[in-house]
Amino acid sequence: MVSLKDIAKMCNVSPSTVSNVLNGKSSMSDEVKQRVLEAVRETGYQPNYYARNMRTNKSGTIGIIVEDLCQFSSPFIVEMILEFLEKKGYRPILMNLRMYHKLKNTSIEDEDTLCSILEPVVQQMEAVKVEGVIYVAAHCRMLKKVPKLVTKINNNVVYTYAYADSRDNRSIIIDDESGAKDMMDYIISKGHKNIGIIAGTADNFHTIARIKGCQQALFNAGMLFNPDHLLYGEWDMQSGYDQAKKLLKNGEITALWCMNDRMASGAYGAARELGLEIGKDISIAGFDNHELSRSLYPQLTTFELPLYTIGYCAAQALVEELTNEEEEKKDNQPMKCKGRMIIRDSVADLTK
Amino acid sequence: MVSLKDIAKMCNVSPSTVSNVLNGKSSMSDEVKQRVLEAVRETGYQPNYYARNMRTNKSGTIGIIVEDLCQFSSPFIVEMILEFLEKKGYRPILMNLRMYHKLKNTSIEDEDTLCSILEPVVQQMEAVKVEGVIYVAAHCRMLKKVPKLVTKINNNVVYTYAYADSRDNRSIIIDDESGAKDMMDYIISKGHKNIGIIAGTADNFHTIARIKGCQQALFNAGMLFNPDHLLYGEWDMQSGYDQAKKLLKNGEITALWCMNDRMASGAYGAARELGLEIGKDISIAGFDNHELSRSLYPQLTTFELPLYTIGYCAAQALVEELTNEEEEKKDNQPMKCKGRMIIRDSVADLTK
Repeated sequence: MVSLKDIAKMCNVSPSTVSNVLNGKSSMSDEVKQRVLEAVRETGYQPNYYARNMRTNKSGTIGIIVEDLCQFSSPFIVEMILEFLEKKGYRPILMNLRMYHKLKNTSIEDEDTLCSILEPVVQQMEAVKVEGVIYVAAHCRMLKKVPKLVTKINNNVVYTYAYADSRDNRSIIIDDESGAKDMMDYIISKGHKNIGIIAGTADNFHTIARIKGCQQALFNAGMLFNPDHLLYGEWDMQSGYDQAKKLLKNGEITALWCMNDRMASGAYGAARELGLEIGKDISIAGFDNHELSRSLYPQLTTFELPLYTIGYCAAQALVEELTNEEEEKKDNQPMKCKGRMIIRDSVADLTK
Repeated sequence: MVSLKDIAKMCNVSPSTVSNVLNGKSSMSDEVKQRVLEAVRETGYQPNYYARNMRTNKSGTIGIIVEDLCQFSSPFIVEMILEFLEKKGYRPILMNLRMYHKLKNTSIEDEDTLCSILEPVVQQMEAVKVEGVIYVAAHCRMLKKVPKLVTKINNNVVYTYAYADSRDNRSIIIDDESGAKDMMDYIISKGHKNIGIIAGTADNFHTIARIKGCQQALFNAGMLFNPDHLLYGEWDMQSGYDQAKKLLKNGEITALWCMNDRMASGAYGAARELGLEIGKDISIAGFDNHELSRSLYPQLTTFELPLYTIGYCAAQALVEELTNEEEEKKDNQPMKCKGRMIIRDSVADLTK
C-alpha cells in the first residue's frame, strides 16, 4: 500500500507538504499542489483519516447540525456551507435533528426538549472530533441552553438563522428589518396610503424585526402607522386567509403585505372570494421568495431571503476562526445578511 | 477516563455486550440494554470510534449520498432514512453531490461528469469505512457508471429514486405507473371523457411509466387514447402554461392532468387567460403533492409521492443486508412504493 511518505518521495516534497495539500491548506504553490494531487490519483493513495485523527487530534472535519432539513430554508443554507467547506478542503458531517418532527406537540422554544434531541448528536460529534460546528436553526430566535451543549463539542461554533445569548460565538442571520423596510418602501412608492400587514406570530424574532422595518418606512414617508391595520398570523396559509378576510372587508386597504409567501397565498384566496382582482383592485405582497410565490396568479411580488449568503458567511466565519488561532473571543453581534426585492405582478401602481 | 471494560464491570456484563449495545445490536434483553445505557450516561463514557474502527473494521457508519439536497423530494427521503438508522443505532454520514448546481450546462444523463463529482465523495466514504451506502437520486433513471463507482466503497448499496442497471443491489423507486393509473381512474370516475395530458420530458423514466399508467386506466374504462391530447412539457411552470394553452384552445378537453404540480400551476394561468374557471369549466390535476399545490386557487387535486416510504424502505433494506451476512446477491428488481391520491377542489364532478 502506498504511504504518505511514498507520495512525498515521488513528488520530491516533504511529507508535511503532502499532508497540507490533502488538508486543503493553500500555503504551497499551485504547481506543487497539482503534482501532489496527480501522484495521489495515480497511486490511488488513501489517507488514513483515523490514524491521522489519533495522531494530530485534528480531523479536518466540520460538523453541521441542522435543526430541520425539511424546513424550506435549510437545504439552501446547507448547500452553500458545503460548497465553501469543500473548496477549503474540509470534510463536512451533516446531522439533522428533525426538530419539527420530534417536537410535534411541544413548543420550539422548549430548549430542554430540544437539548435532549441534540445530546446524542453532540456526543457523536465529540467522538468524531470535529474541528468546528455550524448550527443551522429552523427559525430566528435567541438560543439559551442549546449553545451550552453545542460548545461541549468545541468552542468553534457559528450559528446561522438564530443566535446564542452568550455572544461568545458568531452568528449569521437575516436582516429582517431592512428587508421589511425595502418591501414597505416599494409599496409606498407605488402610491399606496392604506397598507395592511399580516405579521407572523407576535413573539417571533422575524416578526418583531419586520414590524420595525415597516414602521421605519412609514415614518420616513411621513405616514401614520395604524395598529388596527396589523394582524398577527401563524405563518400558514389558513391564517393568511383568515386575517386577509378581516383586513379587506371594509375596502379601505389598497395593499396588503404578508410576512411570508404562505400567508400571502391564503390572502389571495380571501381577495378572490371578496371579488377583488389581485394586482388591480387589491395589491398583495409576500416575503421569502418561496417557490409557491411564482405559482400564484398573478405572480407574487416578494422578497428573496439571503439563504445562500447566510450559508456562505457562516462557513467563511468558521474557517476564519479555525485558521486564525490567536483571535480572541469578543462580543459577537449577529451578522445580518440582506436579501432582495423580487418584483412581479401583484402590486398595482397607483401613481400612474 | 472511563473505558469500555469499566462499563462492563459496572454492569456485570461482558465488554462485548457493552459494545453490542452501543452498536445498536438487539441480541440482549431490554433490561441489560437499559443498564448499559444508564452507565454510559452516568459516567459520560465516550466510545473511541477511531480506535474501534481500526480494530474491527466495522464503523457502524452508513453513508448517504444525495444527488441534490435542494431537489424537493430529497429532504423527505433523507428524513426517514435518518430516522430509521438512528433507531437501529447506526451513525449516518450525509454527503450532498449538489448535482444540479454542478452539472448546470450538462445533461444529468451525462454520467461521466456525474462520476467526476462523485469520485471525491466515494474516496471520503472509503476512508471513513462506511458499512453501507444509500444513494438518493434526484430523479428516476437507470444508472450505469455511477454504481460501478459507488460499489468501490463497498458492496452494500441501496439505490433510491433510481436504479442500477446491474441489479446487483436493491433499489427503491416510486410506483409511477400505479400512481398515474389512480389519478386517471379518479378523473374518469368524475365523468370526464376528453382528458388532456401534459407529460414530463419524453425520455424520462417517470414520464414513460406514468403514460403507461394513464393508458391502462383508459383501456380498463374502454376509452380511446388520443395521442394528440398528450403533449410533453419540461416539468416547469412555463411549459405547463404553454402546453395547456395548446390543449385547451379548442374547448374539447374537460380535464387536464399534468404530471407534476409545477406544470399544473402553469396550466392554471393558461386556463384563467382563456376565461375558464378551474374546477368548473376546466378540471386540472397535478402530481407530487408539492407544497405549492395547496397554495393554488382552487386547491389542486394531486398525488402524494411516497417519499417517506421510499426512505424507510431503503434504510430497512440496507440494514437487512448488513445484518444477514449469508444472504446471497440476486437479481434485484426495483421495489416500487405506492403513493396516494390527494383530492382537493380542482376536478369537477360531471356525473352530478
